[in-house]
Amino acid sequence: MTRVIAIDSEQNERFRTWERLLEGRGIRKHGAFLLAGRKTVPEALAAVPDRFTAVIAPDTPALDQLAPLLPAHLARHVLARPLFERLDVSGTRLPLLVGTVPAFAEADLAAPPRGLELACALGDPSNLGALLRSAAAFGVRRVILLPEAAHPFHPKCLRGAANAVFRLDFVRTRGWAALAAGAGPLLALDGGGADLTRFSWPGDLRLVLGEEGQGLPADLAAARLAIPTSGAVESLNATVAASIALQHWFSRRPA
Amino acid sequence: MTRVIAIDSEQNERFRTWERLLEGRGIRKHGAFLLAGRKTVPEALAAVPDRFTAVIAPDTPALDQLAPLLPAHLARHVLARPLFERLDVSGTRLPLLVGTVPAFAEADLAAPPRGLELACALGDPSNLGALLRSAAAFGVRRVILLPEAAHPFHPKCLRGAANAVFRLDFVRTRGWAALAAGAGPLLALDGGGADLTRFSWPGDLRLVLGEEGQGLPADLAAARLAIPTSGAVESLNATVAASIALQHWFSRRPA
Repeated sequence: MTRVIAIDSEQNERFRTWERLLEGRGIRKHGAFLLAGRKTVPEALAAVPDRFTAVIAPDTPALDQLAPLLPAHLARHVLARPLFERLDVSGTRLPLLVGTVPAFAEADLAAPPRGLELACALGDPSNLGALLRSAAAFGVRRVILLPEAAHPFHPKCLRGAANAVFRLDFVRTRGWAALAAGAGPLLALDGGGADLTRFSWPGDLRLVLGEEGQGLPADLAAARLAIPTSGAVESLNATVAASIALQHWFSRRPA
Repeated sequence: MTRVIAIDSEQNERFRTWERLLEGRGIRKHGAFLLAGRKTVPEALAAVPDRFTAVIAPDTPALDQLAPLLPAHLARHVLARPLFERLDVSGTRLPLLVGTVPAFAEADLAAPPRGLELACALGDPSNLGALLRSAAAFGVRRVILLPEAAHPFHPKCLRGAANAVFRLDFVRTRGWAALAAGAGPLLALDGGGADLTRFSWPGDLRLVLGEEGQGLPADLAAARLAIPTSGAVESLNATVAASIALQHWFSRRPA
């Protein structure tokens, strides 16, 4: 029989580590993340079982129910309910997985882009999650994270991303200047840019997306594209605007 | 000089009413809402001053700073800081406006749609807010609210909507059956539908959007449209998918 570890104390070292995975800082420090979700947990176990190291359940029946899907290498834990609830921030009441965060290499920006590479500084993990879901849906494979960006394995990002993080390669860069000094074409969304719906998309490009409410550095050397609107509101939601751009690239890129 | 009312007690009747405006139920009961935001408050005062009845400030300097923009009919209040913070759920630390919610008439669905009318059951107020922002940006004027929908004047919806609510007419309907029995064309987003990017959009239609995670009743008599994707994720975020559909209608509708 597979050994199950019961944890009842908030002083338990494993529990204390897991609780730190609720914030980007702890995720960075420990190189681990928590995945929750009625659909996402079974899907991720089927798609990328080697990414996970442990399962955390609220009780034995919940663990038993998931057991047929659990690879043998996963450590199994049942937590006292109050402890479990502190980790189950989405309120799923279903087992959580502990996974290993891949190393984010420094991007080699001198090399030309392959496909659409999304360079992103979205600081809100929920916004980033919805964006990553759109990115995977529209054929993006590589995401370049700016220092301002939320951690893509933050619980709120994972919740919005619907397992898209496991389909994407993440690299990081030190800032906008490094991106501008790299290979192009570099494209940005901007209310004053050229009509995106009439644009001849290249197959390979870097699309840059600034921080919410901050936008991009005014002097960033990138071609500007705009989504035509009625003008009734000043701008679109950043995730929505970027998703519209990705959809247009996906449906109109060269074969 | 304009009279300013100071409120220090959480037992104060006005304060108690305002606190109830943080939830849909209280907004419905009192027919009022709270608007917050560094940009949205001055913009709304300029665009629709008659929609507001009062201003609530955290201190006198903050009230004085906004004073040049305040119509004379607004009641002015300065709240003790702990009380103000309970109302300032977005943490703006800037004056809030109290406004009057318009009556949402029952939709006359037998009448044909005029332009794109968005019928929506999104239950999460943040999702609804981002969607309403897209709706106003892409020329929607009328939103039909299903019973499951969040209240469009919920603080989280207003925060995402960036004043789009003041550009839209809201009507309500009792449910999907009433919508299906009304005039068409009725269109819905569905993974199994026809390619939305190749669709000949009519100028007048009703686009229906189900509740998050629930989708639409399987037997709803609506033409289905799909957004082609890579297949890497099962579906797009509901707000993102609807925004993409609205953008396509806006850019390709008959003149």
